[in-house]
Amino acid sequence: MKQILVLGAGRSAPFLIKYLLDNAEEHDWFVTVGDLSLEAAERAVARHPRSNAIPFDVNDVDMRNGAISNADIVVNLLAPVFQPMIANDCLVHRKHMVSASYCNPQVRDLHTDALRHGVLILTEMGLDPGIDHMSAMHLIEGIHARGGKIKKFCSYGGGLPAPGAVDNPLQYAITWNPRNVVMSGSDGAIFLEDGRLKIIPHHRLFTQTWPVDVMGLGMMEGYANRDSVTYQHTFGLEDVETLIRGTLRYPGFCETWSQIVKLGLPNETLSIPNLKDLSMYDLVSMFTPKHSGGSLEQRVASYLNINPTGAVMQKLKWLGLFSNESLGANGNTSTHMMVELLNQKLVMPQGARDMVILVHEMEVTYEHGPNEKITSTLIEYGEPGGITAMAKTVGMPLGIAVKLILNQELPLTGVQIPTHPAIYKPILSELASEGLAFQDVIEH
Amino acid sequence: MKQILVLGAGRSAPFLIKYLLDNAEEHDWFVTVGDLSLEAAERAVARHPRSNAIPFDVNDVDMRNGAISNADIVVNLLAPVFQPMIANDCLVHRKHMVSASYCNPQVRDLHTDALRHGVLILTEMGLDPGIDHMSAMHLIEGIHARGGKIKKFCSYGGGLPAPGAVDNPLQYAITWNPRNVVMSGSDGAIFLEDGRLKIIPHHRLFTQTWPVDVMGLGMMEGYANRDSVTYQHTFGLEDVETLIRGTLRYPGFCETWSQIVKLGLPNETLSIPNLKDLSMYDLVSMFTPKHSGGSLEQRVASYLNINPTGAVMQKLKWLGLFSNESLGANGNTSTHMMVELLNQKLVMPQGARDMVILVHEMEVTYEHGPNEKITSTLIEYGEPGGITAMAKTVGMPLGIAVKLILNQELPLTGVQIPTHPAIYKPILSELASEGLAFQDVIEH
Repeated sequence: MKQILVLGAGRSAPFLIKYLLDNAEEHDWFVTVGDLSLEAAERAVARHPRSNAIPFDVNDVDMRNGAISNADIVVNLLAPVFQPMIANDCLVHRKHMVSASYCNPQVRDLHTDALRHGVLILTEMGLDPGIDHMSAMHLIEGIHARGGKIKKFCSYGGGLPAPGAVDNPLQYAITWNPRNVVMSGSDGAIFLEDGRLKIIPHHRLFTQTWPVDVMGLGMMEGYANRDSVTYQHTFGLEDVETLIRGTLRYPGFCETWSQIVKLGLPNETLSIPNLKDLSMYDLVSMFTPKHSGGSLEQRVASYLNINPTGAVMQKLKWLGLFSNESLGANGNTSTHMMVELLNQKLVMPQGARDMVILVHEMEVTYEHGPNEKITSTLIEYGEPGGITAMAKTVGMPLGIAVKLILNQELPLTGVQIPTHPAIYKPILSELASEGLAFQDVIEH
Repeated sequence: MKQILVLGAGRSAPFLIKYLLDNAEEHDWFVTVGDLSLEAAERAVARHPRSNAIPFDVNDVDMRNGAISNADIVVNLLAPVFQPMIANDCLVHRKHMVSASYCNPQVRDLHTDALRHGVLILTEMGLDPGIDHMSAMHLIEGIHARGGKIKKFCSYGGGLPAPGAVDNPLQYAITWNPRNVVMSGSDGAIFLEDGRLKIIPHHRLFTQTWPVDVMGLGMMEGYANRDSVTYQHTFGLEDVETLIRGTLRYPGFCETWSQIVKLGLPNETLSIPNLKDLSMYDLVSMFTPKHSGGSLEQRVASYLNINPTGAVMQKLKWLGLFSNESLGANGNTSTHMMVELLNQKLVMPQGARDMVILVHEMEVTYEHGPNEKITSTLIEYGEPGGITAMAKTVGMPLGIAVKLILNQELPLTGVQIPTHPAIYKPILSELASEGLAFQDVIEH
């Protein structure tokens, strides 16, 4: 019997755990789910006979080593900050690891050791990053086989409420890790535009947006996402002049969020005493300079240089930035408070569906023949009241990867992202058979 | 013979190493200095008979464990990011550690283990943090003994060229770790002002400055430094309404630096390819949005909303932000490039003196008797062409602490900063006997 250890039973986990349990009998697997909250882990496995739920505190060395040493493979869904630690433990115990988080330099440094010990550390294996890489590689491979040169490559991802699912001024709801929503863009972004490297720092990122037309959905807005340049070589895009990985929102979201960033509210380094007792009014007052009079709204409007009664201010007000009610937030930073606020205000209504979007836009030239503009789109909706599109599209590639690895059908070791044909071919094929397929439009 | 291991032979090390070697014979010490550059370590010990220079790569586990296990005490002058790792190794090998860097949550977490094993991890033991804490505690102790209540506590530190020592538009020169100059304020600041918590994010920090009158020097400018609030309890300032730790610059520096921060140039997360070949013109172009014409200077002025021919732009130009010359910077981030730029442009002239400043300003009320305004000032100048004031004031408290620990005259264990009388009393007394004493002015 093969032992699978899943770390984390949060919003992205339900589909993955269901997939593993549904396949456990056939493949002779046993699935252990660990979470800081034992209750969450128990809820996730629902007394399935081939499952076990355990409490898991990532900061407890003995607990970590105990759980990992008993596994054949670890699926790591913990916060990105813990990825190097878990990857390192997996290497020490010679266990494979699969995760949906971005690879980082500390994990990449384990590559040689992982190769030496025959261990596979497979990261960026969810939706975005994950399915986006695999589908991009598949498209690029086809274009190169036809002799095309890719001049422009823009790739977008978004996790959003389905159109009409929420009725709030931000047209947004929390469908995945709210901490990642609050800290989105905090590392800034670097990308290639018309042959030039461009960098945008966090405090400017949400002001530099552009429209993106998404098949069947109409106009969305895009902003640049982290380090796009690092994928130029990985994707084999030697001829590319524009290379941008971006994130999609409904139009107007970024205009409002940029003011929240300008205030400085996404901050997880400065420690604030007594956070539990504070209201958003208290918090926003801290981020606003000493005053000589006027309401907090007026002072914030003047500090941010926005109209005190205009559309953006209306949205900030709706979100509760000026509310006097204590939020009861856990933690000790402004980010913890914002997580609590978003969790309370940006709730998916009962029975509403979420949606994930992936879009690749490419401009391709051929030596003989007309240029092409290729648009490849995946839109997936959640089940009303059931598993979200986010959990499904993050969990399915992870689950398939686990199956391939345990069946020894994935002949790779080292630290990898899913850009190797041995990974993306079988996984894309199974995703398509489960209905997760892209629609391509080619314009000449 | 007691073995002292000094890690890092950079700008802050010369006085410390000299102090240890000068006292080595009397106390029967042997001093080993390790640096990534063996040459730098050799230069620092200058073949002293009680010394050894070794190459030291902090990322080499075996090298680290080997060096630390042979020592009785470790003085850690490496970059702050390595502090948790070195502190942890010291704990494993049961060695005391002294450092001039800020304590951080990861190091603080070692407190219980350090207590259990009788190990002292003494951080914030240089100038600022270091002498500032000790002198503040000494003042506060006196005020409390007289029945005073401290309503306002502002404490400033600065490492600068002496007045007239440099002739450049920023009135600044690199006298300590240039990486820390570039990343100064990158965590933002939190402080207490008139009974209210205030937070300023990095991108606003250098715009919110205020004048500080320094005895004998005239008007300087101050900006808030990191987390001041955490010291309220440590310093016993239960009645305080304003509590600010700040950094001092010559007036006008922050106005210019704030534009560099707005552009986003202090950034050590995004990786830039081929940095070695880039000019500042190339780098600044990356941080400036796509253009429709005009010179880079004009585009930057318009993006930052500053006058394209005004004083701030003149300073940015002087600093070389628009220069086409390749800088040959090591590393792969914008911060590495800025470090190279400051190292090349903000050089202390041959024979010029640096200066360090510490100022405490307190407002004190008494139940019986008039209120007091106390100003306590330390200004120290470097030797022209010799040891800098920065190296002396960082190194002397570190050296004295090493002596007290090895002589078993410092009866503390655990993770500490120098706010305990057992630490600050003997150290302040020796600092004063070496001429490092504060001048106090009391106004009623």
